[in-house]
Amino acid sequence: MSEPTTKFLLPEDQIPTAWVNLMADLPGEPLPPLSPATMQPAGPEDLSAIFPMALIQQEVSTEPEIPIPEPVREAYRLWRPTPLYRARSLERALDTPARIYYKYEGTSPAGSHKPNTAIPQAYENKQAGITKLTTETGAGQWGSSLAFACALFGLECEVFMVGSSYDQKPYRRSMMQTWGATVHRSPSTLTQAGRDQSSHPTGSLGIAISEAVELAVQREDTNYSLGSVLNHVLLHQTVIGIEAIAQMEMAGDEPDVIIAACGGGSNFGGIAIPFLRRKLRGESSTRFLAVEPAACPTLTRGVYRYDYGDTAGLTPLMPMYTLGHDFVPPPVHAGGLRYHGDSPLVSALVKEGIVEARALRQNDCFAAALQFARTEGIIAAPESSHAIRGAIDEALAAREAGEERVILFNLSGHGDFDMAAYDAYLSGSLEDPEFSEADMEAALARLPETPPVG
Amino acid sequence: MSEPTTKFLLPEDQIPTAWVNLMADLPGEPLPPLSPATMQPAGPEDLSAIFPMALIQQEVSTEPEIPIPEPVREAYRLWRPTPLYRARSLERALDTPARIYYKYEGTSPAGSHKPNTAIPQAYENKQAGITKLTTETGAGQWGSSLAFACALFGLECEVFMVGSSYDQKPYRRSMMQTWGATVHRSPSTLTQAGRDQSSHPTGSLGIAISEAVELAVQREDTNYSLGSVLNHVLLHQTVIGIEAIAQMEMAGDEPDVIIAACGGGSNFGGIAIPFLRRKLRGESSTRFLAVEPAACPTLTRGVYRYDYGDTAGLTPLMPMYTLGHDFVPPPVHAGGLRYHGDSPLVSALVKEGIVEARALRQNDCFAAALQFARTEGIIAAPESSHAIRGAIDEALAAREAGEERVILFNLSGHGDFDMAAYDAYLSGSLEDPEFSEADMEAALARLPETPPVG
Repeated sequence: MSEPTTKFLLPEDQIPTAWVNLMADLPGEPLPPLSPATMQPAGPEDLSAIFPMALIQQEVSTEPEIPIPEPVREAYRLWRPTPLYRARSLERALDTPARIYYKYEGTSPAGSHKPNTAIPQAYENKQAGITKLTTETGAGQWGSSLAFACALFGLECEVFMVGSSYDQKPYRRSMMQTWGATVHRSPSTLTQAGRDQSSHPTGSLGIAISEAVELAVQREDTNYSLGSVLNHVLLHQTVIGIEAIAQMEMAGDEPDVIIAACGGGSNFGGIAIPFLRRKLRGESSTRFLAVEPAACPTLTRGVYRYDYGDTAGLTPLMPMYTLGHDFVPPPVHAGGLRYHGDSPLVSALVKEGIVEARALRQNDCFAAALQFARTEGIIAAPESSHAIRGAIDEALAAREAGEERVILFNLSGHGDFDMAAYDAYLSGSLEDPEFSEADMEAALARLPETPPVG
Repeated sequence: MSEPTTKFLLPEDQIPTAWVNLMADLPGEPLPPLSPATMQPAGPEDLSAIFPMALIQQEVSTEPEIPIPEPVREAYRLWRPTPLYRARSLERALDTPARIYYKYEGTSPAGSHKPNTAIPQAYENKQAGITKLTTETGAGQWGSSLAFACALFGLECEVFMVGSSYDQKPYRRSMMQTWGATVHRSPSTLTQAGRDQSSHPTGSLGIAISEAVELAVQREDTNYSLGSVLNHVLLHQTVIGIEAIAQMEMAGDEPDVIIAACGGGSNFGGIAIPFLRRKLRGESSTRFLAVEPAACPTLTRGVYRYDYGDTAGLTPLMPMYTLGHDFVPPPVHAGGLRYHGDSPLVSALVKEGIVEARALRQNDCFAAALQFARTEGIIAAPESSHAIRGAIDEALAAREAGEERVILFNLSGHGDFDMAAYDAYLSGSLEDPEFSEADMEAALARLPETPPVG
């Protein structure tokens, strides 16, 4: 390590004071969500059974900035501001003229960027007098983040964990329980949605969402919390990009391309939105690249239309790229990227050609993560390995073109709970599943009639 | 969380520039190690088969400060300076007038304080032309830290992992392999020491040390690396305490008592030594408390005499508290604290009454760790849970006495790889083993005649 990694660290008083809301800068009117009962535009009142009004207001706000409540900033201080690094050792290993930077969100107690939104969601629910939050989790990153946030604010937390993950990832479950959460294997017998799916014992994210929503609707003192997709979730994650803008200024560089993994969109939106605002205002020509698994290629192979957020069709329909709400992606290790749909905001940006999307194979991503661990020293989560692959490919393209290129990517979490996947990769037994177009076509054929989105 | 946790963060230019060497301030002459072949004082030449001269010079130096090489400081920048927090939520939960601070070392890529010494050890070996390091590891914290450091400096790394841990902790093994290390199950068939112990298939730390040392002695291009006990290891860890002094000044508080877990002594020494120097110089009256597991109570129940560092008797004998070098502690989850001996430096300070020692039960420590996770949000390693228990007990004693008391403890690592232990605690099935005095007496009876230490 003759020329070392360089870190750019902000002082604590630069924890952002306001989130960036891109809705204010988007061209045209945003398409509304639709009520699943009526297929008519859903208003705030349709959401109030499961979300507190403060979050609903954030969801529909067109203010360009939304102040971060002081208790939320105080909780952020546990791990924020997060570091931004220049990956000099990786650059050297790639023999590239590109300069590669990464923002590292794995230093939170839950190990990923997810607490950035779990904290304000727990806070606003507490303020609204709610005593319990329900949610779903796949690989466990989101469930453990909400369990952590609920512990800090004194809320009960009830997590429906996808059955196959519950069985295979007992340690993420233990983590949630250590923070005091109750964890149910989904499908459970606690809900109608769960009982209806007893023939699918391994479960799915869509089924777990249906269960969590069902409980929240039934109880006055209970709300539901979602870890991605929605506007207010992406809003909370913009602390990543706001800090990164200040850190790139410290580094004296301006990113030519910004890369992040995209499942439900909060990882990508978190780093991209503050930079996207500059682009939409004509202040930069930065490219944006959302990378997703080839096993669940929502942005690159899905259709742009209204669809449900969950399997059972309990949630509002959203205008987004989708593979069909009952499409079940093959089991890749990047559980956080196995979602049939995507953020309406990110979907619209891809549709408009403002954001590029690329699908990557699992083995290629792990190869990149291994090279990263051995040069930069950090073992990445499988989700984040997609961003590393994207960044390495851009750096190799820069070498090919003989161009200096400034690359910034979001390293959204560490891989401490994913070593079985690294094990499989190292032993040559990691599967490399591809998406089934036939399954997608079948799932899309089962969708209801909805208004057009174009 | 009405009154939030407070973090004290240093700017990067306050990564220490020199380690603190307490040898300069200790009363009297330090007792030398003894050669296992002759039982005579061992000189630098006795160590040169397995350590580079730069580390041997650090081991025997009496200079009060030793400069940190710039490439080591640069590598430290990956995660240093580490944060220091005031545990306001925990204080409130305990209803104590005490002010509790903790230094958090779990933000390193390997998840503990161990890279603080792995980095300079890898660096000095690289400088000396060594191409490979061997070492042992129990629970895996040390092995993964050395694997990480070797990846950064381009050294090969060969780890002998205690058999029972190798079987039970596959993910720490995968972590080492991800960083490019070779991991052997110990006892192995690669060494005489391993073959001699084939009747103990679950292995022990002492056996694994014997195997790693044997390989290093045989090969010119290979050295051995130890993660605790020795003076130069404690020296490297003083970056913890040096930073903590600056951070306690930021907080405007002076610790009345400093607490850390003690296995081989590097965790305790790391935070304590810079403060101990002030005490030895008459500049403070801080108390120091080393906490250890009741299952392996070296400082509280061991005898102070010369003993080997390993089971096979290959290492020099050191003057220290010991339970007998072939004593096998019961299997508690704090694998890093299951060592028959202790740092000669810490042992001498306990012997002189400058440092207090206390043995704690495993279940009491996990109860403390759970309370900590649910108030402060961080899930601690089992080793660190001992320091939490110690700090809570001091805070409760302060409440009892109606005293303001300033408590500082070292939270040496996170518990991501120890969730099975939390699981056992939460389900009420965690064992609470005690130490066997009969086993210790038998182990001590097997010790060779050595010169007296008093």
